[in-house]
Amino acid sequence: MIPDTLAFGEQVSSLPLMPTPAHISQGEGQLKIDSSFTIGLEGYKDARLEFARKRFLKALSGQTGIPYHEEVSSGTPTLAVKTSAGSKEVQTVGEDESYHLEVTSKSATISAPTSLGAMHGLETFLQLVIITPNGFAAPAVTIDDAPRFSWRGLMIDAGRHFQPMDVIKRNLDGMEAVKLNVFHWHLSEDQGFRAESKAFPFLTGKGSNGDYYTQNQMKEIVEYARDRGIRVVPEFDMPCHTTAWFVGYSDLASGKGPYEIQTRWGVFDPAMDPSRESTFDFIDKFIGEMTTIFPDEYFHVGGDECNGKEWDANPQIKSFMQAHQLKDNAALQSYFSGRVQKIVAAHHRIMVGWDEVLQPNTPKDVVIQSWRGPKGLAASARQGNRTILSNGYYIDLNQSAEEHYLTDPLGGDAAKLSDEEKKRVMGGEATMWSEFTTSEIIDSRIWPRTAAIAERLWSPQDVRDVESMYIRMYAVSNKLEAYGLTHQTVTPLMLKRMGGENDPKDLAVLASIVQPPRGYDRESLKEYDWHSPLNHLVDAVPPESETARQFNVLVKAIVGGNASQAQWQTAKQWLTEWRDNDAKLEPALKKSDITAELAPVSQTLSQVSTIGLRALDDLQNHHAAEASATQSDLQKLKAAEKPQAVLRDMIVTPIEELVQAAGKK
Amino acid sequence: MIPDTLAFGEQVSSLPLMPTPAHISQGEGQLKIDSSFTIGLEGYKDARLEFARKRFLKALSGQTGIPYHEEVSSGTPTLAVKTSAGSKEVQTVGEDESYHLEVTSKSATISAPTSLGAMHGLETFLQLVIITPNGFAAPAVTIDDAPRFSWRGLMIDAGRHFQPMDVIKRNLDGMEAVKLNVFHWHLSEDQGFRAESKAFPFLTGKGSNGDYYTQNQMKEIVEYARDRGIRVVPEFDMPCHTTAWFVGYSDLASGKGPYEIQTRWGVFDPAMDPSRESTFDFIDKFIGEMTTIFPDEYFHVGGDECNGKEWDANPQIKSFMQAHQLKDNAALQSYFSGRVQKIVAAHHRIMVGWDEVLQPNTPKDVVIQSWRGPKGLAASARQGNRTILSNGYYIDLNQSAEEHYLTDPLGGDAAKLSDEEKKRVMGGEATMWSEFTTSEIIDSRIWPRTAAIAERLWSPQDVRDVESMYIRMYAVSNKLEAYGLTHQTVTPLMLKRMGGENDPKDLAVLASIVQPPRGYDRESLKEYDWHSPLNHLVDAVPPESETARQFNVLVKAIVGGNASQAQWQTAKQWLTEWRDNDAKLEPALKKSDITAELAPVSQTLSQVSTIGLRALDDLQNHHAAEASATQSDLQKLKAAEKPQAVLRDMIVTPIEELVQAAGKK
Repeated sequence: MIPDTLAFGEQVSSLPLMPTPAHISQGEGQLKIDSSFTIGLEGYKDARLEFARKRFLKALSGQTGIPYHEEVSSGTPTLAVKTSAGSKEVQTVGEDESYHLEVTSKSATISAPTSLGAMHGLETFLQLVIITPNGFAAPAVTIDDAPRFSWRGLMIDAGRHFQPMDVIKRNLDGMEAVKLNVFHWHLSEDQGFRAESKAFPFLTGKGSNGDYYTQNQMKEIVEYARDRGIRVVPEFDMPCHTTAWFVGYSDLASGKGPYEIQTRWGVFDPAMDPSRESTFDFIDKFIGEMTTIFPDEYFHVGGDECNGKEWDANPQIKSFMQAHQLKDNAALQSYFSGRVQKIVAAHHRIMVGWDEVLQPNTPKDVVIQSWRGPKGLAASARQGNRTILSNGYYIDLNQSAEEHYLTDPLGGDAAKLSDEEKKRVMGGEATMWSEFTTSEIIDSRIWPRTAAIAERLWSPQDVRDVESMYIRMYAVSNKLEAYGLTHQTVTPLMLKRMGGENDPKDLAVLASIVQPPRGYDRESLKEYDWHSPLNHLVDAVPPESETARQFNVLVKAIVGGNASQAQWQTAKQWLTEWRDNDAKLEPALKKSDITAELAPVSQTLSQVSTIGLRALDDLQNHHAAEASATQSDLQKLKAAEKPQAVLRDMIVTPIEELVQAAGKK
Repeated sequence: MIPDTLAFGEQVSSLPLMPTPAHISQGEGQLKIDSSFTIGLEGYKDARLEFARKRFLKALSGQTGIPYHEEVSSGTPTLAVKTSAGSKEVQTVGEDESYHLEVTSKSATISAPTSLGAMHGLETFLQLVIITPNGFAAPAVTIDDAPRFSWRGLMIDAGRHFQPMDVIKRNLDGMEAVKLNVFHWHLSEDQGFRAESKAFPFLTGKGSNGDYYTQNQMKEIVEYARDRGIRVVPEFDMPCHTTAWFVGYSDLASGKGPYEIQTRWGVFDPAMDPSRESTFDFIDKFIGEMTTIFPDEYFHVGGDECNGKEWDANPQIKSFMQAHQLKDNAALQSYFSGRVQKIVAAHHRIMVGWDEVLQPNTPKDVVIQSWRGPKGLAASARQGNRTILSNGYYIDLNQSAEEHYLTDPLGGDAAKLSDEEKKRVMGGEATMWSEFTTSEIIDSRIWPRTAAIAERLWSPQDVRDVESMYIRMYAVSNKLEAYGLTHQTVTPLMLKRMGGENDPKDLAVLASIVQPPRGYDRESLKEYDWHSPLNHLVDAVPPESETARQFNVLVKAIVGGNASQAQWQTAKQWLTEWRDNDAKLEPALKKSDITAELAPVSQTLSQVSTIGLRALDDLQNHHAAEASATQSDLQKLKAAEKPQAVLRDMIVTPIEELVQAAGKK
């Protein structure tokens, strides 16, 4: 479905690496990767590096189809990995992750001060491997690399839609491939409590539908992540987003109860009761238990989106606020956060919270995760608190990779920070909220766009070439399949299922140019809850249409007057295919209720393509269109801009550009 | 890649079930499968059925994209499963596997005397679910079903290419879906010993490359299979195919050694030494250990393909034969088998062996697995031994599903057996030998063709409609994806990798009409060993081209004079696409050494399609071709019949038919 991004003859001088290394210089020739390839560990060795070696061979097999076996081979290895020391038993923020990679036409070497760097070097090597007329090979290159930010994360929300163990594991594999080093695990939500507590068994017993992680499973994930140089930061959101806690433990709540798990999406009223000591006793015991599972130095307690309604309605809380001179709900939440911070600290952890946690008196070691905007990030840093950016990295909102990519933790308001303040910006996190993400499609929501965010967080600030980013992102995307991710394979399987057809070619054409609605639009178009099947075209297609993006590039070239003959031809060919698609697709759509809703979308595609072809012809023949025709076309296109069947047709805007250009005298 | 098999307007009255149930009658209306669907267990309950219930919901989610959660719901379930009793702790041959399934427009019921039948009923229900204009639904139906044969197996060779745990597990899932009930695990080969022995640690320690199953893993598989109503029969092949045993324990061998694991394919000389008591002591201890892991009543000891060279060369063995009046190597092997049979029996197991094991004095309880031909099967049954058919079910040989499907355990020589003798034919097994099968592509070698074999072994003998079989097989093939099998997704991923392209459309066109060579031809075309990458087009394409098969059907209709307008048109459209493909594909092929070899294959496709188009035109215009032109075309086609780059172009034969038809006056 994704056209070859090199199809227009661009010369890609850059290598297919993502994130781009800090320093790179290309050499002469290439190292052949055939069945004689071997890898050897030198210097510091441990079980983790040995395991990394085996995973490397498995990934290399996956990328080449050449069978590499696990056994250690004797003799000089093709790739020597020289490590000076292990990383800490519990990985900490800011450990040395640097490595040096040298590839010649004869052999390759990775040197790294720690095993973290060595593992990053292995991933870079895997990305270098390409197919050539002489077989698989890695080009000769010298790389000196280290990350720009020490906190490079992916958050997965396992609360709204539970994500099974294998989903978490393969996404950790994907994170390793692009050098992300923090897995932020959102474990409790209004819709479900997902972490087993032995002290409070009703948290999952009553606060989930049976889908949760056992303590052993969570330990397994911590171990699995550690093996890949990834820290695990658990999040238990409080005092709000807490309905699931209250189903089994209603005494924690500010309202009367009884409570039931929420099955819809949105912001709900239930909130913990900060006026009772028993609330903090519970939290203390619970956090104490969780720290035996999660050894990381940081512990996330959420803190977002309190609407205060339960507090307002509870007279006891009202009098508590008066007694403690807490003038409003913000002050009450601040009091709550302060108490929780002390509990977290007593358990030898550093507290992390969302924007709302930051108050003038917030202790300086609290880390603020900024989701509301760049101002919050800058404010934290100015106030002396370290901070992580997530605003701009909300991968659930179906924005383009470009938009995420160009969001810089030190851009916007943060650009004006002092050097001292800038140091408090630890990095960022892509956040995968799961209202519209089942375990079936989550990979396609996370990848490949998260690779672009990973580059932003790792590579030098001035690496910002968007076209290069897209080419490299899709190259890496293909390689991620070798890690078992399903972001590419899921679309054709779902298209088959939607229509009950073996080869839904025409449906695939339609699928290639539509996108899910962006931001929070989807819920406004239709009602959803956690029983809603996410099996429609909107769920099957990737968040960003690469065909549409390339069509935009084509149109820019055509309108700009610098399109090649091949680009004119491709534009015409695509528009013709899109125009003719509805006639072929229409009879099949009726056979399934899932595809039936697509009839207007398919018709629109045909109509806008017809308009596009007309404009293209005019442009090619240097024939200026009549103003009235232009106007009428633009009106039709305007109508087509609206989402249909919760889908956005992504070629309308570039066709508008064509029509406008064709209308210019 | 697979055209919709319903494209030519066939009316499929049969339901998408495979295997076809013994008795089926369709009712009125359909049961809607939406998010309100629930399932409940009644009568006998145990952990296995509860687990089956959860797996059913997961599979149903996978098939529909509707999220079903594990929790038990209150109220009357949509699907009630009524089970009378559990199956035996260790499942035995011939347990009752029957079930009754009733679906109305309001609800559904499965009733079964045992949990085995209940699980089969669940799989049938899953297959009934289709997409309709009113959403997912199961048609109203009454089914009474039970298997024709009690032994319905799949053998996987983990010796030549090791197959990791996840591969075994997902194939067990696939087996369950088509009601196969025996997993025959080929665990030792010349190329590797794959089962951990604590008594003899060098079996894997020296006799493998580190790829083997630990005892816990094997127990895990036994448990996993049992949960799915599948017995696990381990095979340790002896006295030949035993090189791997001898690397660590050369005293077992008839030759002098030292031995090394074989890395090539074929029949090798090493054989166990039947002249030494120590050999049988070893086997006794080893089998004793393995029976603690594999509880099944049957134990497979191989016995195939001894070339006798090591025996001939060993004077000690020669004098042993003389002393025991063993006149030739067959007699020596017979002596060996007899001793082994006693050991197996002493460990309370029934011995299974390949054809060669059968001798006039073979004990009657030994089961013969027939791989050499129908004669062997019939001979066993006549001699009083029970037997299993595998000849005709060698899925590694890239035969068509049709050929496997029409092979009947009671066909050929066995058709002439008496009723008493016929009862000794227990069933059959698909055998997945792994010379040319890595863990990456094994699913595509096994599925979907094994579903056709499963139908042969389950359904009534007179269920033999090949067109219906293909339609249902591809329907089930799509559903198998919901079990995590990768037989469909692997091809596009490999095509991408082969050429380094994001959307290798033109390569996919070529891929759609080629097939791997059949039988044992491949090795004669090129040399292979276990280091050979299986990453070429021959490995990426399915063993049977569905496009080519459908083209054959088209051509038959055209030549037979009963083709519809649509069929004429499709034939012309396909031939045109194939003719024009080379011009588009040719430049891309040069970029990769894996695709470079395809240039002649692509050219041939273009050439034969040109010939086909000419013949098609002549036929359509009722213009009889010149005899000399016909002759020259046929000659060119003859040349194109030969495999190229180890691939067979599957449209040459039907084009020959077109040319011949066009040449008739």
